[in-house]
Amino acid sequence: MNSFGENIKVTIFGQSHAPAIGMTLEGLPAGLKVDFDELQRFMDRRAPGKSYSTQRKEPDAPEFVSGLVGNETCGAPVTAIIRNKDTRPADYGNLADVPRPGHADYTAAVKFGDARDKTGGGQFSGRLTAPLCIAGGMIIQFLRERGIEVKARAASIGTVKDDGAFPENDIGEDFPAVSESSRAEMLGEIEKARAEGDSVGGIVECVVTGVPEGIGEPMFGGLENRIASAVFGIPAVKGIEFGRGFESARIKGSEMNDPFFFDGDGRVRTKTNNAGGILGGISDGMPITFRVAIKPTPSIAKPQESVDLKTKENVTMTVNGRHDPCIVPRAVPVVEAVAAIVIYDALLSAEKEN
Amino acid sequence: MNSFGENIKVTIFGQSHAPAIGMTLEGLPAGLKVDFDELQRFMDRRAPGKSYSTQRKEPDAPEFVSGLVGNETCGAPVTAIIRNKDTRPADYGNLADVPRPGHADYTAAVKFGDARDKTGGGQFSGRLTAPLCIAGGMIIQFLRERGIEVKARAASIGTVKDDGAFPENDIGEDFPAVSESSRAEMLGEIEKARAEGDSVGGIVECVVTGVPEGIGEPMFGGLENRIASAVFGIPAVKGIEFGRGFESARIKGSEMNDPFFFDGDGRVRTKTNNAGGILGGISDGMPITFRVAIKPTPSIAKPQESVDLKTKENVTMTVNGRHDPCIVPRAVPVVEAVAAIVIYDALLSAEKEN
Amino acid sequence: MNSFGENIKVTIFGQSHAPAIGMTLEGLPAGLKVDFDELQRFMDRRAPGKSYSTQRKEPDAPEFVSGLVGNETCGAPVTAIIRNKDTRPADYGNLADVPRPGHADYTAAVKFGDARDKTGGGQFSGRLTAPLCIAGGMIIQFLRERGIEVKARAASIGTVKDDGAFPENDIGEDFPAVSESSRAEMLGEIEKARAEGDSVGGIVECVVTGVPEGIGEPMFGGLENRIASAVFGIPAVKGIEFGRGFESARIKGSEMNDPFFFDGDGRVRTKTNNAGGILGGISDGMPITFRVAIKPTPSIAKPQESVDLKTKENVTMTVNGRHDPCIVPRAVPVVEAVAAIVIYDALLSAEKEN
Amino acid sequence: MNSFGENIKVTIFGQSHAPAIGMTLEGLPAGLKVDFDELQRFMDRRAPGKSYSTQRKEPDAPEFVSGLVGNETCGAPVTAIIRNKDTRPADYGNLADVPRPGHADYTAAVKFGDARDKTGGGQFSGRLTAPLCIAGGMIIQFLRERGIEVKARAASIGTVKDDGAFPENDIGEDFPAVSESSRAEMLGEIEKARAEGDSVGGIVECVVTGVPEGIGEPMFGGLENRIASAVFGIPAVKGIEFGRGFESARIKGSEMNDPFFFDGDGRVRTKTNNAGGILGGISDGMPITFRVAIKPTPSIAKPQESVDLKTKENVTMTVNGRHDPCIVPRAVPVVEAVAAIVIYDALLSAEKEN
Repeated sequence: MNSFGENIKVTIFGQSHAPAIGMTLEGLPAGLKVDFDELQRFMDRRAPGKSYSTQRKEPDAPEFVSGLVGNETCGAPVTAIIRNKDTRPADYGNLADVPRPGHADYTAAVKFGDARDKTGGGQFSGRLTAPLCIAGGMIIQFLRERGIEVKARAASIGTVKDDGAFPENDIGEDFPAVSESSRAEMLGEIEKARAEGDSVGGIVECVVTGVPEGIGEPMFGGLENRIASAVFGIPAVKGIEFGRGFESARIKGSEMNDPFFFDGDGRVRTKTNNAGGILGGISDGMPITFRVAIKPTPSIAKPQESVDLKTKENVTMTVNGRHDPCIVPRAVPVVEAVAAIVIYDALLSAEKEN
Repeated sequence: MNSFGENIKVTIFGQSHAPAIGMTLEGLPAGLKVDFDELQRFMDRRAPGKSYSTQRKEPDAPEFVSGLVGNETCGAPVTAIIRNKDTRPADYGNLADVPRPGHADYTAAVKFGDARDKTGGGQFSGRLTAPLCIAGGMIIQFLRERGIEVKARAASIGTVKDDGAFPENDIGEDFPAVSESSRAEMLGEIEKARAEGDSVGGIVECVVTGVPEGIGEPMFGGLENRIASAVFGIPAVKGIEFGRGFESARIKGSEMNDPFFFDGDGRVRTKTNNAGGILGGISDGMPITFRVAIKPTPSIAKPQESVDLKTKENVTMTVNGRHDPCIVPRAVPVVEAVAAIVIYDALLSAEKEN
Repeated sequence: MNSFGENIKVTIFGQSHAPAIGMTLEGLPAGLKVDFDELQRFMDRRAPGKSYSTQRKEPDAPEFVSGLVGNETCGAPVTAIIRNKDTRPADYGNLADVPRPGHADYTAAVKFGDARDKTGGGQFSGRLTAPLCIAGGMIIQFLRERGIEVKARAASIGTVKDDGAFPENDIGEDFPAVSESSRAEMLGEIEKARAEGDSVGGIVECVVTGVPEGIGEPMFGGLENRIASAVFGIPAVKGIEFGRGFESARIKGSEMNDPFFFDGDGRVRTKTNNAGGILGGISDGMPITFRVAIKPTPSIAKPQESVDLKTKENVTMTVNGRHDPCIVPRAVPVVEAVAAIVIYDALLSAEKEN
Repeated sequence: MNSFGENIKVTIFGQSHAPAIGMTLEGLPAGLKVDFDELQRFMDRRAPGKSYSTQRKEPDAPEFVSGLVGNETCGAPVTAIIRNKDTRPADYGNLADVPRPGHADYTAAVKFGDARDKTGGGQFSGRLTAPLCIAGGMIIQFLRERGIEVKARAASIGTVKDDGAFPENDIGEDFPAVSESSRAEMLGEIEKARAEGDSVGGIVECVVTGVPEGIGEPMFGGLENRIASAVFGIPAVKGIEFGRGFESARIKGSEMNDPFFFDGDGRVRTKTNNAGGILGGISDGMPITFRVAIKPTPSIAKPQESVDLKTKENVTMTVNGRHDPCIVPRAVPVVEAVAAIVIYDALLSAEKEN
């Protein structure tokens, strides 16, 4: 289904070319204040129209239709919608029965048949990450009130890595990576892919600091389970790892284990953070760290091989429309949004137990 | 919580040194036959007592207390328990208030306080994967009836890779990898870690063939979401990737996209399978492939730094007890079990729609 | 939370005086056609503005913002909103801190504190049954395609019973009861309550015909559990009974048990239907019948005793605003809506098993 | 499915003649103490073997296999089983294909086919209320620690009402009603039914005192929704009403509304409790009161009309086996158990919000 969460629950609705997209956020405590300007700035980080992204123009301004009195939650579900304005369904006319390789067109056709929304990816469109950012952008504000910060960056684009220190340093305004030189290189990598009629993937790294120890549940209710489950709801994600992740498979226990010690304040800390802040599914008080693999945008200008589901013939096709040669930078706030929602949800669970 | 699944739901219970561990499997159709001998052989692949594993002796023979009439499901929840026999809680006496690095001891102490089960990892013990294998082992049989095969292998141990072809070839009886020479090298890697009082991690690769197209839900209900969520319920998992996974972050869209074509039978297939059989969360008819990063066993013989939660002092501690220098081989059937449960669950969802 | 359902899930959002109210319906199969005119006629049965109801004027015309392509479901969540137009929050100014007896004002104040939406009942308003009717009105159409009819009536208003045969006969256009003379008496009962500055309750009876046998789950997933759980989501409901209901507590087993027989078509039927079509939580092929007790509208013109939560004083208060002296007739389509949603949801569950 | 609850979740398993029945209770905080003797006394109130019940002899002594360390919860799921001992499946041989009127035999046959457990009602047996009492009996102890008391009685048997004051007075040891003379009359009513080869129903009334205000969620998450949903999981329940219930449908708003006032302690109270302690699904601080209609036991000695599902013929049948002429007294602790579980679950929800 289109929902996730336990104490708070986010439901996403809409299609790329429907009248609107939107979200409902249930279970929020009453009396939380939303800073709409800050929320809009957060939305803008994901919005299209940047040099490296699709040229579709959408201001992505959420309209709140319920759940707020003024700028404050009242305990009722918060629903916000974003009207789709700059739709060009005609761009997709020739694709109706020819699934784009790497897209969900074919599986949508199998699952929903001829009644599926055939324009712009329908409900599988990356555009559906906008409402996810409404929910996450609000919750990032609520977490900050509790001393919890969520930060993500593009850790790599193709083979180019961000060599800046993170999360110590902030990301750039032009591009969500730390090092200025890396940012230039990354933009170059994306421009090169665009020039070739191709696309390129990358890795988003996310760090959540200030999470108290003891958040999360054992076994299937752990932070890793919940973050992973929600992160794969972002289109184009093909992998996730926590802490040392896949590297941990190559090393020894004596290197991997994080030694405990009492810090100056009498709190238990670990000398390293190979676990990514999570042991047994539960936060240990260190920063939560994870990395997400984003595949290259499947929409590319190069001709590709596909099938015509109506005529039953193999065909060569070209994807028209306006597409990002790299969605990694726009995925950065989306990953933050998902992390924030899951952490906040787990935080509310933990509170009920004490 | 300790459950997952939608149409079928698995609940795991027990602790390492409780009277028993077990599972309840709700939602199974009536009339499915269980081959108990085959199930036991599956359980034995995970059971301890092998050269490369802990010397704890547990036959791991499930006792079914409900849900079956003879060897057939009757539509009621199936519950099976395994009595814990070879328990030695005394081994853990000195650890009660000194959390083992890399284990959930510390986070369990934060979450559950002094009332937590302090022996053998309590509910966080790897032993809880045995009941998961009861559920998965049954379901693997039900899937086979539908032409779906679930196979996993140790793709690497530390830096040693299995260079055999998979899933075309079967895994060895002595060790769950394909190539005979790789198996010898992997066992050597494990033996070396044990000799050093250390441990080593690895990667489990899983392939599910025969899954029909159209299984899974969009967004948060996708196969990737569900498999990832459940896989992180296996202790020591730190990452998961589908298809080309993290590699996809480094390549171009033209390399990543799988071209469609009609095969001889008039079915849509893809020439490559970089997507790992999943597009938009939904199966595309190609094999489902994923890889799981398993960290090295945190229990090692080497002295480690930790804290005494009672005296509030930093201490050096040594883990006693019987431990695996590498849990990767025993995790192989557990990953199969989880994959089977999720796929079967999704399969039942899909059937209701048609 | 504000959702219910398993295979399909309805989420209701909005408050009485928020910009909008609405609903999201997830899990609908693709390709189902919605007759918007019929839906509007269904909505109109619940809408205010009738002789016996509040004078608030709201056309209650749903705007579908997602999930439909033309008039057909596409497999994405269906979201529809209704703008609130004729709001008069000023009517509620004097009630902000004086809870109306019989309303949720006091419990809302306890639960959500000062941030609660204080106007018009907020999220507890009966107005939230309008979006429930969007979902139910659509599903009634889908059920009819499968030969399932959902019909409800006002079985009694205060002490006046509808003495018409039901569901054999249809309800009247002026009032949702069968017998013409009973309808006149019922309207008189309501008019009398209004004239006295009082209100009156009643019973809604619902019958669902054409439900195939075998729908529903054992124990906590039975039709009775699910219908009851959802029906208590309708404000003012204080009781529910299935088949002979409370009467069954007074009779003998030999009177209560419904004898089985094979009907002419070789189908198993029961000679009586005291069970209300449900045995062990599962449909037995006979009509599903249940009755719902609706308390008198708590908003009455008579002065009432209450408390001022700010000044901490006992006070006498009068409820202003526009209110129904009896909400039973408007609850009739709402009960149909809830019954339809639950039955359809259970129907989809059952299909997956066969 | 066989589970309910959100913060805590109860899963029931077993069949009447399976090796065992049992329950798993997830989500309990760690460190709660169980008084096993008191629990056994609670179980005994439901157990068979009394004058008015079946002669099946089962001590119903739960064996805890996980989740407790000593007598204290440790944060892991608590699982307990009860071995079935006094099974006589032969009693049911002649019923295999002839469904007993009023039982779930026919609907079980439709739903689960020939693989269903045909002996003793299988998973639909009233015996499954024993594990429900393990869960509820524990939780009643936890609630008492918080000043919350759960009490139920047989308010009527057939047409005989208990005319004692409740919950002010305790129920009798011989029979769960307050008035001594009513108890004698009720036992007479039951004995008469038994002598006639018949059975009789009744009403269970439950009162929960000490519930703080603000417990429960709006709309579909209200206390009424949750209690109703779980109560219909008790076999033979055909109706439920809260507070004045069905009577409220016959009265005026001015009679029904409970006037608020500040009591001596400065707490808000209501002068009457027609709402049964719940407004808008949320507790208002007054006692939670509800009444449950229990139909007469469907197993009666009198010959009844039924069908042979194999031969497709109408038949006359007689129910053998050991049956209660009235299950109402044994249902009394079961209703308490369900009420306790739901209230405790809602209490944990509420705590997380503050």
